[in-house]
Amino acid sequence: MSISAFEHPFLSGLVGDDETARFFTAEADVQAMLRFEIALARAEAGAGVIPQDAAARIVAVLQGFKPDMERLKRGTGRDGVVVAELVKQLRSAVGGDAAAHVHTGATSQDVIDTSLMLRLKDVLALFGERLEALISAFAALDDVHGRRNLMGHTRMQAALPITVADRLHAWGFPLARHRERLAALLGKGLPLQFGGAAGTLDKLGEKGIAIRAALASELGLADGPQWQSQRDILVEVADLLSLISGSLGKFGQDIALLAEMGGEIKLAGGGGSSAMAHKQNPVAAEVLVSLARFNAVQLSGMHHSLVHEQERSGAAWTLEWLILPLIVAATGASLRLAQELAGNIQSLGLDA
Amino acid sequence: MSISAFEHPFLSGLVGDDETARFFTAEADVQAMLRFEIALARAEAGAGVIPQDAAARIVAVLQGFKPDMERLKRGTGRDGVVVAELVKQLRSAVGGDAAAHVHTGATSQDVIDTSLMLRLKDVLALFGERLEALISAFAALDDVHGRRNLMGHTRMQAALPITVADRLHAWGFPLARHRERLAALLGKGLPLQFGGAAGTLDKLGEKGIAIRAALASELGLADGPQWQSQRDILVEVADLLSLISGSLGKFGQDIALLAEMGGEIKLAGGGGSSAMAHKQNPVAAEVLVSLARFNAVQLSGMHHSLVHEQERSGAAWTLEWLILPLIVAATGASLRLAQELAGNIQSLGLDA
Amino acid sequence: MSISAFEHPFLSGLVGDDETARFFTAEADVQAMLRFEIALARAEAGAGVIPQDAAARIVAVLQGFKPDMERLKRGTGRDGVVVAELVKQLRSAVGGDAAAHVHTGATSQDVIDTSLMLRLKDVLALFGERLEALISAFAALDDVHGRRNLMGHTRMQAALPITVADRLHAWGFPLARHRERLAALLGKGLPLQFGGAAGTLDKLGEKGIAIRAALASELGLADGPQWQSQRDILVEVADLLSLISGSLGKFGQDIALLAEMGGEIKLAGGGGSSAMAHKQNPVAAEVLVSLARFNAVQLSGMHHSLVHEQERSGAAWTLEWLILPLIVAATGASLRLAQELAGNIQSLGLDA
Amino acid sequence: MSISAFEHPFLSGLVGDDETARFFTAEADVQAMLRFEIALARAEAGAGVIPQDAAARIVAVLQGFKPDMERLKRGTGRDGVVVAELVKQLRSAVGGDAAAHVHTGATSQDVIDTSLMLRLKDVLALFGERLEALISAFAALDDVHGRRNLMGHTRMQAALPITVADRLHAWGFPLARHRERLAALLGKGLPLQFGGAAGTLDKLGEKGIAIRAALASELGLADGPQWQSQRDILVEVADLLSLISGSLGKFGQDIALLAEMGGEIKLAGGGGSSAMAHKQNPVAAEVLVSLARFNAVQLSGMHHSLVHEQERSGAAWTLEWLILPLIVAATGASLRLAQELAGNIQSLGLDA
Repeated sequence: MSISAFEHPFLSGLVGDDETARFFTAEADVQAMLRFEIALARAEAGAGVIPQDAAARIVAVLQGFKPDMERLKRGTGRDGVVVAELVKQLRSAVGGDAAAHVHTGATSQDVIDTSLMLRLKDVLALFGERLEALISAFAALDDVHGRRNLMGHTRMQAALPITVADRLHAWGFPLARHRERLAALLGKGLPLQFGGAAGTLDKLGEKGIAIRAALASELGLADGPQWQSQRDILVEVADLLSLISGSLGKFGQDIALLAEMGGEIKLAGGGGSSAMAHKQNPVAAEVLVSLARFNAVQLSGMHHSLVHEQERSGAAWTLEWLILPLIVAATGASLRLAQELAGNIQSLGLDA
Repeated sequence: MSISAFEHPFLSGLVGDDETARFFTAEADVQAMLRFEIALARAEAGAGVIPQDAAARIVAVLQGFKPDMERLKRGTGRDGVVVAELVKQLRSAVGGDAAAHVHTGATSQDVIDTSLMLRLKDVLALFGERLEALISAFAALDDVHGRRNLMGHTRMQAALPITVADRLHAWGFPLARHRERLAALLGKGLPLQFGGAAGTLDKLGEKGIAIRAALASELGLADGPQWQSQRDILVEVADLLSLISGSLGKFGQDIALLAEMGGEIKLAGGGGSSAMAHKQNPVAAEVLVSLARFNAVQLSGMHHSLVHEQERSGAAWTLEWLILPLIVAATGASLRLAQELAGNIQSLGLDA
Repeated sequence: MSISAFEHPFLSGLVGDDETARFFTAEADVQAMLRFEIALARAEAGAGVIPQDAAARIVAVLQGFKPDMERLKRGTGRDGVVVAELVKQLRSAVGGDAAAHVHTGATSQDVIDTSLMLRLKDVLALFGERLEALISAFAALDDVHGRRNLMGHTRMQAALPITVADRLHAWGFPLARHRERLAALLGKGLPLQFGGAAGTLDKLGEKGIAIRAALASELGLADGPQWQSQRDILVEVADLLSLISGSLGKFGQDIALLAEMGGEIKLAGGGGSSAMAHKQNPVAAEVLVSLARFNAVQLSGMHHSLVHEQERSGAAWTLEWLILPLIVAATGASLRLAQELAGNIQSLGLDA
Repeated sequence: MSISAFEHPFLSGLVGDDETARFFTAEADVQAMLRFEIALARAEAGAGVIPQDAAARIVAVLQGFKPDMERLKRGTGRDGVVVAELVKQLRSAVGGDAAAHVHTGATSQDVIDTSLMLRLKDVLALFGERLEALISAFAALDDVHGRRNLMGHTRMQAALPITVADRLHAWGFPLARHRERLAALLGKGLPLQFGGAAGTLDKLGEKGIAIRAALASELGLADGPQWQSQRDILVEVADLLSLISGSLGKFGQDIALLAEMGGEIKLAGGGGSSAMAHKQNPVAAEVLVSLARFNAVQLSGMHHSLVHEQERSGAAWTLEWLILPLIVAATGASLRLAQELAGNIQSLGLDA
């Protein structure tokens, strides 16, 4: 399992981030999909669409359910989505009359997109905390070093002296704006996806809207019309993540340049070289640049996925699956490394 | 002048948009830069930093000023920015004692970034109107055709019947969200850039902040600290533009597929073929897809420009100049074509 | 006409390149399209498909033909391609019985793709000369400065001393490989596109292949089956252009870092600042980085255009038109600036 | 381990490819790095740079060596590369006087880049076989269905009838060219990377060149000067991979459109739906489009990595590590799925 550096046995030491990755394990995905099916059974029983005892049975079985992963894999290869096979396994586990009531009126996309939103909500909360911590770290650096001098550079040339505070603002102000952007996004609420086979909740008739509302409430997501072919909501999240890693890329690039020119920075924790014992490489600073560029590259794919033809595009949706987790992982790593790097700044600037 | 299809003598018939392009002519840029210099002279005179009569002279001369474009071109080639040469021409035109007071305390980036924001503000207002018109066009189609049937397609296969209204929602709801995003962005205000040589307003001393506020007020931009190396503000605009063209790309792709399968759509105004007289090509629909992908590609470059090293990165800044106008032009063309295409829909769906 | 910096009244002083741009004017495109139609008439007369005197009339009229550009623009807006309107104008100019023989058996894509190949052939020849000149410039620098010392830097840290020759090799060896790649590409020959309405030369019957061969020979392009929906040939050209500008981006980045750290390089011709008279900015070096990243961004769009559905994709083809000229322009500018920058290196390294 | 869909417990059923992935496991990387160190010891003993018995000891120990992966991970996190820690473990395992002779004169980049080239060589051979098989599959379809009719479509509109053979050529001719491109690339040989700490083989003195030649010969790679900051060689490989998946994306898009319009294709093995039992989704066809766009996106990042500053750029190099394995995995999956899809075509076209 080493195609992706984010989960590679040794490269993950550099760009991995366990706290972030745990929301994107297959297990976490399955758990979130089960949460959807459980909440759906409850909401549908509440609306009288499925029997209460069927719902009770579904809830009881699904709460401890462990899927046969190998069959999920084969099913995904066959169907292009995991849900048909998962639902088959769920129905088989539930058994009896209740089995037929699993997943009533829902479609693959409801399950998968809602699972994603549930996990993104947690991820964004984590990233919000990290932004906060980083903003504090810059504030702390400002307290200690802010009034010292730093040579300002424009167009890769020494220009005029600035203060360390000036530079810290260039790193920190965008983060404060990202914090506001994140708050605005979470304020609107990450949306439940629930539309049924063709997005019309056709099997639930008049009760569809009420069930959707109950489902959203149970899952802590925003209620609203299905958005299965309207991917702007998701792309907006990706935009923000790439803005965050991009701003941290500037921080990394600046530190790498300070370290290369020497004199104005003292950094702890530089990396060693296999060939040159004397070197102290600003590894985290460089990797912040790599991650910024990585996300800048990936984001393009998310915007392509807006061209999501008809009611559900396998091509555009699969493209999201290939890319969005990478963006999340890179952003998590970027925030982790930025915090580590900020913590390693022992001195910045020169006394005035 | 034909490198860019947006302003190509004949390709602009397809992807050009005069209403948008006029904000990105060199003349419009120069005019906005002059507005900055005029407002600066007034603000600085108001604060007692430059003499009132010098400001009056500057204002009088700059209001009708026409630069020597050929020398601006040579200056840009030499300096990497147009401003040094422009200011030289301005000082020469102003003459006398007042000459030295032109551009006091400002730097190239103040002039260029502020000119950009002034023009983006107008562009975004135009795009807001177009979004509005498009939302209305979809509402009108809904009134007429909304209750008719349309075959819903998932994964490029007929799935279940939906209504035309369902499909119109998939096109229109994202636009309504884009309208809200645009309003939020304009609500925050597009920011003045004003920081001086190294971003510290060093030449204006204690009066810098007040002058900045007066300048912002005069120009109708939001006041705040300089953001010369913090490009998230600009990238956020680009994100929104690509979201818009991406959603319109889905509209185009859907129309092209409807036109290819036939039966459910009647379109006016298809394009002809040089070899096949019988064909009616859904040209605008296809071009909406092209423009969506074009912006999805370009946006990546804007996110790379977030890695803006030190106080001013010539490399990152020039990259913006190469890319942002293309995104604006493509979005303008996309909105124009979408409106044209929506207007050409004569019939959608089949009677129930 | 200022959306694109490459042809902007003053930004073109920085990133323009007249020698390259002249192959991408609308006029040059029209001339190359006329060359195609002229050669086609000759080839078809030679094969007895159209009358000799009709061909003679066509050749005579088309050689001096100037199209009505405004109508070409309207036609392109309507049809998505310029050719239907152009052929209409040509037939009207030719008049009489010969008129109907213009464009016999050809389709829009034949005309447009072949025009592109004719011009790319010239552009690639120009770029080949520039690569050659640049390789020579590096060799000349090697002669003068090659044995001097330079501090080698790895991971943005001083590592071990190298020689100036070592660094020059890192800049020059890729260019030598690009020269070989270019030779290989030109050795295969840029291909004629000729397939008729659906790619089958259906109107020319058995004579189609012979006419195609005659046409290729007359135009100096490689003969072969039509490739209208097989865009790898074009994308391969774009790949090479981006490889060239990418390698020059490394050269630019290295020079900018040398200039920032000072001591080891003496550069003539740095750019001035509007606010700081003492600065000498390595403008060309920075812009080489911008252009490298610009092409790295654009290239993605060319690879998307490989997904060219069915016999002709308006969406994918238009995307090429939006992007390929930008890549060509950026590569031309990159080669121009690299040569200028290499010529401005007055001293490199330190005496051993 | 589920960030990347290519190795995700269930998504890999859709986009995984074990045959390709095995070359990119951490174990395969370590084995290839050990091959480098073993070959280096032999070559250096042959040149008299290290003692014969030290080399024998190194070879003996390294042949069965299993690293402590957890420490490799920590080392990579600290140093930015795995090699310093790996060499430490190797020296500790070798022990005695021979320990100091491990990795003599080499640097991290020599080990890592050479390991990559060794594995790419195998991957490219595999892809060559798959291209071959696919070309054969299209030829077989041509034999059976080639003379049947198919409606040619241009600009998403029925145009003129073509033959199935015409369409098969549009799918197969690019693959034949890719086969030639691959042969040309392998003909030049994938290059050994060997340059030592700053690329100058400084520790090996006059013997450096001979050792490099012996090393290349032992490893089956092309000998030549180090290319540690010249990444065009690697990017050229990525270009070709994206060309391959791009052409297969066209194949997938065409099949999906044929399947949507129905009538002209009969496909076995379509995927099921969780909500609509009647559907047969052309899953592989859609995923080919996703993979084409995925690689088109990723390739941009590889071209950015050409801006590889100075003697070794941690930022640019890490970016390659994040991206290149993804491109390889996507291309492998694309070739696998294309073959599966070609095999599932039961009928194409209609009898004439």
